Amino acid sequence: MPETTTKPHNLFPGSQKIYIQGDRHDIQVPMREIALSPTNKVDGSQEANDPVRVYDTSGPWGDPDFHGDCEKGLPVLRQAWIKERGDVEVIEGRQVKPEDDGYLSEEHARKKANNGNGRNPLKYFDLENREVLRAKSGKRVTQLHYARKGIITPEMEFIAIRENMKLQSIRGNASGIQNVPSNSMHKQHHGNAWGAEIPKEITPEFVRDEVARGRAIIPCNVNHPELEPMIIGRNFLVKINTNIGNSAVTSSIDEEVEKMRWSVRWGGDTLMDLSTGKNIHQTREWILRNCPVPVGTVPIYQALEKVGGKPEELTWEIYRDTLVEQAEQGVDYFTIHAGVLLRYIPITASRMTGIVSRGGSIMAKWCLAHHKENFLYTHWDEICEIMAAYDVSFSIGDGLRPGSIADANDEAQFGELKVQGDLTRRAWEFDVQVMNEGPGHVPMHMIQENMLKQLEWCDEAPFYTLGPLTTDVAPGYDHITSGIGAAMIGWYGTAMLCYVTPKEHLGLPNRDDVRTGVVTYKLAAHAADLAKGHPAAQWRDNAISKARFEFRWEDQFNLGLDPDRAREYHDETLPQEGAKTAHFCSMCGPNFCSMKITEDVRQYAREQGVSEEDALKAGMEEKAKEFVQSGSEIYQ
Amino acid sequence: MPETTTKPHNLFPGSQKIYIQGDRHDIQVPMREIALSPTNKVDGSQEANDPVRVYDTSGPWGDPDFHGDCEKGLPVLRQAWIKERGDVEVIEGRQVKPEDDGYLSEEHARKKANNGNGRNPLKYFDLENREVLRAKSGKRVTQLHYARKGIITPEMEFIAIRENMKLQSIRGNASGIQNVPSNSMHKQHHGNAWGAEIPKEITPEFVRDEVARGRAIIPCNVNHPELEPMIIGRNFLVKINTNIGNSAVTSSIDEEVEKMRWSVRWGGDTLMDLSTGKNIHQTREWILRNCPVPVGTVPIYQALEKVGGKPEELTWEIYRDTLVEQAEQGVDYFTIHAGVLLRYIPITASRMTGIVSRGGSIMAKWCLAHHKENFLYTHWDEICEIMAAYDVSFSIGDGLRPGSIADANDEAQFGELKVQGDLTRRAWEFDVQVMNEGPGHVPMHMIQENMLKQLEWCDEAPFYTLGPLTTDVAPGYDHITSGIGAAMIGWYGTAMLCYVTPKEHLGLPNRDDVRTGVVTYKLAAHAADLAKGHPAAQWRDNAISKARFEFRWEDQFNLGLDPDRAREYHDETLPQEGAKTAHFCSMCGPNFCSMKITEDVRQYAREQGVSEEDALKAGMEEKAKEFVQSGSEIYQ
Repeated sequence: MPETTTKPHNLFPGSQKIYIQGDRHDIQVPMREIALSPTNKVDGSQEANDPVRVYDTSGPWGDPDFHGDCEKGLPVLRQAWIKERGDVEVIEGRQVKPEDDGYLSEEHARKKANNGNGRNPLKYFDLENREVLRAKSGKRVTQLHYARKGIITPEMEFIAIRENMKLQSIRGNASGIQNVPSNSMHKQHHGNAWGAEIPKEITPEFVRDEVARGRAIIPCNVNHPELEPMIIGRNFLVKINTNIGNSAVTSSIDEEVEKMRWSVRWGGDTLMDLSTGKNIHQTREWILRNCPVPVGTVPIYQALEKVGGKPEELTWEIYRDTLVEQAEQGVDYFTIHAGVLLRYIPITASRMTGIVSRGGSIMAKWCLAHHKENFLYTHWDEICEIMAAYDVSFSIGDGLRPGSIADANDEAQFGELKVQGDLTRRAWEFDVQVMNEGPGHVPMHMIQENMLKQLEWCDEAPFYTLGPLTTDVAPGYDHITSGIGAAMIGWYGTAMLCYVTPKEHLGLPNRDDVRTGVVTYKLAAHAADLAKGHPAAQWRDNAISKARFEFRWEDQFNLGLDPDRAREYHDETLPQEGAKTAHFCSMCGPNFCSMKITEDVRQYAREQGVSEEDALKAGMEEKAKEFVQSGSEIYQ
Repeated sequence: MPETTTKPHNLFPGSQKIYIQGDRHDIQVPMREIALSPTNKVDGSQEANDPVRVYDTSGPWGDPDFHGDCEKGLPVLRQAWIKERGDVEVIEGRQVKPEDDGYLSEEHARKKANNGNGRNPLKYFDLENREVLRAKSGKRVTQLHYARKGIITPEMEFIAIRENMKLQSIRGNASGIQNVPSNSMHKQHHGNAWGAEIPKEITPEFVRDEVARGRAIIPCNVNHPELEPMIIGRNFLVKINTNIGNSAVTSSIDEEVEKMRWSVRWGGDTLMDLSTGKNIHQTREWILRNCPVPVGTVPIYQALEKVGGKPEELTWEIYRDTLVEQAEQGVDYFTIHAGVLLRYIPITASRMTGIVSRGGSIMAKWCLAHHKENFLYTHWDEICEIMAAYDVSFSIGDGLRPGSIADANDEAQFGELKVQGDLTRRAWEFDVQVMNEGPGHVPMHMIQENMLKQLEWCDEAPFYTLGPLTTDVAPGYDHITSGIGAAMIGWYGTAMLCYVTPKEHLGLPNRDDVRTGVVTYKLAAHAADLAKGHPAAQWRDNAISKARFEFRWEDQFNLGLDPDRAREYHDETLPQEGAKTAHFCSMCGPNFCSMKITEDVRQYAREQGVSEEDALKAGMEEKAKEFVQSGSEIYQ
């Protein structure tokens, strides 16, 4: 029986931040436990409802005991685990240069930092106590390497506990603290997992085996010890990624850090920092030191800044230096557009929307300018060596993803996907963890083909898709056009969904757009988990539906993905506090409530002296005979 | 070649209200034509872009020549068509009583109307010039009846023109007014229509045959001559329904009329008035006289008001009187929960969320109180006779739809669906048009089973579903949880989707919730049309994607489902007018634009002296050889 520690959650009302103790003393897996009020029964008695534990990505930011100071960063949760493996060494590390932040010199950076407009002050994160780690010569320090050796790492044990929310709730019950859930809570549909095999209980051994097989990855750079381990694979809960990033046109470091905290609050499982323009290095430093989830980047963006924004001036050396720079900072996965081969580029000229991936465009331009093969492709082995030395995972980019319905599933897109498969197998030879990026704009009937081809061509490496957007016609609502595609492709087997906000195609997301995008993708991922029949999914639906049906309004709000919005919407119509305990709602009013009437049905079933089971049987047999007969009479 | 009339649209910027002339002089089919700006080509020349015609549900409210006065109502578009068939007669009609609006007497109504709080003033619509029509004795006046006789009604011709938006655009071109669209505009995917058979051109004969077969309905009460005919069937564009309705707790007549106008502005294809409480009759009168789309109701709601809200006091006589009352007013379809049979009711006692349909609950309570079979079921034939006399269509209710994931596809739900099939066939014997209501809460993997069973059991009568919601866990976002399911079930063959707003489960939708709900469902319906390969669907995606790719910002906004929101979101980041013609956007800034780079790719293809086709070929053949070779070298 795992012990747990419990304290009020910092970010959600009615919730506890709990930690489930693993076998190792220093494995404490965070969850959020939502307390529920009792059911008021018809006979006047009350029946307790078990609290519900949910996956919690908020990290220490949700813990009331955490100092909460960005300038100090997060605790280094994984440091001991990394060091005790004995395969990394502390290195001096690459010297951070003014160019890393887009300045010509230190003088230039200082001047810009002090220009007093307060817009983009270059604030340095204090790295005094920070070491830079790298694999010892001849060692590979990736989770894939350990898994293949048969080793269960603390990261894997952590994940096994983390993926078993339902089981953890039941274990909590068995300890006698809470009641056993009612029968109806156990009603669970058998999903259609399209060949995925999700066990009833996720064990550390299962985590290891999936990683060893390449079917799942645990993105966790040895230089990002702050992260709470998580896994991406189709036999686990579907994850979502959120993007943040300043841009040449707007935003600052503080805003980006705050966006990161906001994103993990709502449930972002990983975070991509897509910053461009100035201060890229420092923005990333602040994010990494404060981020409890894996961080990904597209290194070509920064490399491009270093050559003044001219793709044709990119070189392998500048790119390589950027990879090392970011690996030493602790970036957990790199998007690398190595599949954009020269031969596919002319095909895109006849597309409706050409190349819409930024990374893809940059590489296309480089290839054309030099009339040479993509240098990311020709230097793949060297890239793999770097990744293996820090345990940076690949997110092999889909530079030719379709930017419109018309371009979906075309030769360019699928040509690149095949190359992604070749690159995946090659990376595995270096023990580097790999996922593959996919979709874009794809109509519903063409979605599953993407998944099937990816499974086949990329040997079941995790798929990580943007949406897909299922139509082009709804700018301002592309979190929804894509949420539809995301839920579907998640069901078909995609392991992680890259979120889209309402501002897609139109502008940069603000705070509320990020929240809307994250929650939309959380619900899409959850819908996918349900459809796959993931054992830890329907639990939460059952709990919220029971609360809804029993007019436990506060429980309904708190069990939802966005309790604040649910409460706010309810209060718009009926703000009085009493309305939250009332046995009716604003849709139908007090005398006209279908849920109220169902209570009468249940009472009727009770009064008839039959149990619910008997009523069912009676309803299906005797009553059926009686009324089928009388019913059919009217047709004679 | 049909003639068209053109004038600025009242509700959308950059749009014209156009009317396409049918063969009859009085058939003028409204559409909205979106004007596009020319493409600026690399060589400095411009290329015109054809305007795009879209389906327009706004009715006269979008016409600048319309008086725009609610108190006068809409023109009676169909009156001549109805009368010239010679099968209706003017009747005195049922006397409207104070009880119809929930008052004890005329005195009571006046007092309430004058109570001075301004909240619910009972304003009577002026009916001086209005006749009430009914079928002559022995006649059936339904579109199904005419279709079976081989008659093409003006309604059918109107619809055939209306469903052919793409064709109408091309015809416009062929008349020499606009340029022929560029090749890329013709790229269209072959959809998967799951056995539906959508012709390339919708002819009046096809409309007639689908109606005759019962696979499509044209809801159009002879007493609602104001409506612009539309069709609901799986071989046509997927439609959406919106709900409005005052409730005991809030809202007034003016608000409901304004909600109706708001709903048809954004694209609601039909409208259900779900009012309860006081003033039901007058609210409906105002809505009907001003509504250009079919109006549906759930008559049991009003019947229940007439018996003081006590289901057990309902009688067939009161219900029958309500049907006649509403049929004479002009309601186009009735939701009737005749499939909630006594034998299914006890089964719901063991559900997670019992009976969540209001109509279903009311009938369940009545059945239990009297221990008798549902009187809607036992009086079905009499109901059919009434429907046939006014051409009111059935929307056979799903009173036992699941209110939670746990209850999806259970015995109660499917038991009722089978009965819906029996009732459908019976109604067809009376020449009454029928659709069937379905879903509720259903996880993705269980959605298609609903469609397949409905097609089989209900003999391909149109399916009309609420969502389904694909998870229970996101109150505040149920337009999205259900938009996912709606798009999917629309693809599988559902003909009309009943919208869900963000306030679902929480409160009454306000103006902005209605807009968000409608647009979400429009995009879901469009995604379904795309996936089915509907010939009039991808046209619009292609046009908007071309505009997006060419930085024609205003065109992108105007081609979207919600131009105002798209413009607003864009302007949040870059409000300057210049930004709307700029060749970059706020996401990446001026020097870092993937679409800009693709222009270079195209220029490259051009400079290489090859056409796009050749580039494609070259890319696939020669270049492939060259680079596969050099690419594979690195792996040797």
